[in-house]
Amino acid sequence: MVKDSYLVGLIGAGVGPSLSPALHEREADRQGLRYLYRLIDIDALGRAPDAVGDLVRAARDLGFDGLNITHPCKQLVIEHLDALAPQAEALGAVNTVVFDGGRAVGHNTDVTGFAASFARGLPDAALERVVQVGAGGAGAAVAHALLTLGAGHVTVVDALPERAAALAAALDRRFGGGRVTGGGPQGLAALLARADGVVHATPTGMAAHPGMPFEGALLRPGLWVAEVVYRPLETELVRTAREAGCAVLDGGGMAVFQAADAFRLFTGREPDVGRMHGDISELVAAAGVRG
Amino acid sequence: MVKDSYLVGLIGAGVGPSLSPALHEREADRQGLRYLYRLIDIDALGRAPDAVGDLVRAARDLGFDGLNITHPCKQLVIEHLDALAPQAEALGAVNTVVFDGGRAVGHNTDVTGFAASFARGLPDAALERVVQVGAGGAGAAVAHALLTLGAGHVTVVDALPERAAALAAALDRRFGGGRVTGGGPQGLAALLARADGVVHATPTGMAAHPGMPFEGALLRPGLWVAEVVYRPLETELVRTAREAGCAVLDGGGMAVFQAADAFRLFTGREPDVGRMHGDISELVAAAGVRG
Repeated sequence: MVKDSYLVGLIGAGVGPSLSPALHEREADRQGLRYLYRLIDIDALGRAPDAVGDLVRAARDLGFDGLNITHPCKQLVIEHLDALAPQAEALGAVNTVVFDGGRAVGHNTDVTGFAASFARGLPDAALERVVQVGAGGAGAAVAHALLTLGAGHVTVVDALPERAAALAAALDRRFGGGRVTGGGPQGLAALLARADGVVHATPTGMAAHPGMPFEGALLRPGLWVAEVVYRPLETELVRTAREAGCAVLDGGGMAVFQAADAFRLFTGREPDVGRMHGDISELVAAAGVRG
Repeated sequence: MVKDSYLVGLIGAGVGPSLSPALHEREADRQGLRYLYRLIDIDALGRAPDAVGDLVRAARDLGFDGLNITHPCKQLVIEHLDALAPQAEALGAVNTVVFDGGRAVGHNTDVTGFAASFARGLPDAALERVVQVGAGGAGAAVAHALLTLGAGHVTVVDALPERAAALAAALDRRFGGGRVTGGGPQGLAALLARADGVVHATPTGMAAHPGMPFEGALLRPGLWVAEVVYRPLETELVRTAREAGCAVLDGGGMAVFQAADAFRLFTGREPDVGRMHGDISELVAAAGVRG
């Protein structure tokens, strides 16, 4: 008689335009669940990023079932949790918190989200030599996912070479085998010339950061391109790569699988990822940020 | 495309068995709203009653649209609010908080709930001489409602005579005219012998407090009886009064109108009170506490 009900939210800065509420709630509606996804914007609240601990405790007390966590709180939240799932611990970043009784358990669905999207969207992609542009938070998750997918070697380049080197060192400690190298962008043309594919993991191409992360002339047929940005789905990189004859994975799949994995953690139910892919195309278009 | 969504809750001690979630959510479902009602039990959380201020602020920050407040927090919450509606201010008790932007505004729907239930259920009741048993929180709201309904004189009796006297004095300050008297229960038989009706506003008759609030032999045809307890709907008083030929109002109507008034404050939409009356009968029966 009483529907199963779920209360979840997203804590971060500037989360107002997030599509997560619609993505989660649409799938829940199809499953007949009572499901409410609230945006908790620390900027709008005038709270500092380290308020995330208080907000997580308050959410637990007020009956939330779980939370997504985003920039700039993914690392800061960790000290306030009771336990971490292995991938969150390995990555040192949490994007999903599940309340299990009184305990708060941290997960990371960015890694699983990218890995699932890649496996679905570029199933035949060669992974011997992969170049990744961007070593920030998304970059750490993506590089982690590439190694779990079996990448032979990943070269991470970043405008901050020391950030790329630190990420490479951390991944090497976990995965071993010297499979990751980090550095600056100066050798990118040569790297791409002999790579199987390239993953883009910086904000460039978002509505607020238009443009290309590197010269379009470096793209060629035979080089696959995976994009992390999903607003718009068709970034300048995605469009240019398609025109150049590359196999292309846009950022929508990662967003969908990340949300689907969180939905599964929150509810214990299996989301229909195919329907959620349809949703995100509609939602991104409706939000008016198609490229 | 996106449904209007509402997140509300109830803060109090021992609120686990509350029927408010089902009562609100059923009506919201019929109206096509996304509506989630969470129980926030300070006992279960191990929090003191004065934690209500922190909980109200946290609820506002986490995206709640409003809260119901119950024992023992109805007075304690007041100092944490930004404004009070007139009836809440007059009563010195808040059972509903609405978040309006960043502001928290306190209301009291116990008064309006009893008044509406009485007007609907006992429309022809004479109100010249009313006796009320019980001067606690519910009693204050009910006596207030009786005076707004035009009662000529209300005599409040309570096992704590000074509590009844204090309530009478407070009501006299607001309504004037010497329309309220307070005292102990010793003169009850004589009072009932010449009263038009009696309102019962103590916990006696609830599952945890079975029994009668006064001798059933004091009931007679021509005396109307209004009950505040609604779990069960048929208290021993309600059953005895029906058998004695009294016009009887059970406690379900007050619970429904109180919830309906809160629903209207939270959503700005008109609830269908008739359907909610059907709900509460079902819900009380399903909860297995019919008398």
